[in-house]
Amino acid sequence: MNSVAPPSRPRAVVLMSGGLDSCVTAAIARRDHELHALHANYRQRTERRELEAFHAQADSFGIADRLVVRLDYFAAIGGSSLTDTAIAVPDGDPNAKGIPNTYVPFRNAHFLAIATSWAETIGARRIFIGAVEEDSPGYPDCRPEYYERMNAVIEAGTRPGSGIRIETPLIRMRKSAIVREGIALGAPLELSWSCYRLQEPACGTCDSCRLRLEAFREAGAPDPITYDEHYAQA
Amino acid sequence: MNSVAPPSRPRAVVLMSGGLDSCVTAAIARRDHELHALHANYRQRTERRELEAFHAQADSFGIADRLVVRLDYFAAIGGSSLTDTAIAVPDGDPNAKGIPNTYVPFRNAHFLAIATSWAETIGARRIFIGAVEEDSPGYPDCRPEYYERMNAVIEAGTRPGSGIRIETPLIRMRKSAIVREGIALGAPLELSWSCYRLQEPACGTCDSCRLRLEAFREAGAPDPITYDEHYAQA
Repeated sequence: MNSVAPPSRPRAVVLMSGGLDSCVTAAIARRDHELHALHANYRQRTERRELEAFHAQADSFGIADRLVVRLDYFAAIGGSSLTDTAIAVPDGDPNAKGIPNTYVPFRNAHFLAIATSWAETIGARRIFIGAVEEDSPGYPDCRPEYYERMNAVIEAGTRPGSGIRIETPLIRMRKSAIVREGIALGAPLELSWSCYRLQEPACGTCDSCRLRLEAFREAGAPDPITYDEHYAQA
Repeated sequence: MNSVAPPSRPRAVVLMSGGLDSCVTAAIARRDHELHALHANYRQRTERRELEAFHAQADSFGIADRLVVRLDYFAAIGGSSLTDTAIAVPDGDPNAKGIPNTYVPFRNAHFLAIATSWAETIGARRIFIGAVEEDSPGYPDCRPEYYERMNAVIEAGTRPGSGIRIETPLIRMRKSAIVREGIALGAPLELSWSCYRLQEPACGTCDSCRLRLEAFREAGAPDPITYDEHYAQA
């Protein structure tokens, strides 16, 4: 994983949450880019664990330039069980319709704005984000159309010729295909963290754990992370 | 200024920097909306003074709900004389072309993302921002097209039916017309702060002071704030 990058590759900012999708996204992006990794702490419940996963993955990928930002205001704004401790994280329900209470209103726009400011400053022309439409059907800011429109804003709102564009290599992929791609690229999936609920081990039952476990099962590979003793992988 | 607002007016988020333009914008917005005021500290040089102006104006307008956010990461990203103390703020030059070094890459997108998350959470359908094309010709994120595109992102990226839209009532106005509008609406212009350079008194010579003084002169009204002794208002 720590092979030396060839010199003078174009720069890219990659958003790395510490999760599975952004881990695979970074593995894709590094083939052609010199990576600059962005991570946000926004007082989400599993903040400490996600930050740990971010640094472990960045070490594994050999990414030297990392920007960790603190966004305390999400907790002040509230409205999501991820940042508002007054709202409980529900068990995942594959038949649930609508927007889950783990939705943080317009969250990805904040991360993309930071990525764009950073990209413009360091001369990166690509921003990689591991958004996946399938596993976030209720999250309005995980749809391809959202990213197309955000690229139009970036074009209008950055220096002429900045050439900055968001890339969403996973957006149309099934979760199981993402797992397979990650394994094929040697992405350090064992260092990724997805659970919404606990710090350690993963709960195995929240929406995010459920989708992850399903994906590994479908991909025919064991999930390399540990789950809560009350939950046993099939 | 402290008249009691009629009940059940629609809510709006208004971005208030502490400056002149957002002061007039708030005066416009309050005619038809219950205001919720947003202010960002981003380690800009005059952060303390701008925050003071924000609270003084919000007091004057009788705005109870205020969200003050801290964005420390702009200083880490760098690239602007406003947040990077290694770069000096230049004197204003009316003939300068291109993007001035006071430009903070993609700054307004951060503020609008926060405003949108907050608006979605509190059920506000309007976001007011005092962007002015004329006085920021070199800032890509002060053009009408930028806001049209941002509205398209908000439409795609928030809950269906959120109905959130950015309003830019000043965007096509000349700065002198903004001053006149502010005076006509009884906006507390004496509580506004525009200088890029100093905490107190205003320098009178940076780009922002120069444009402000020119606007008051053109409007035929004295600027009610105090300027540095080395600079005398004509």
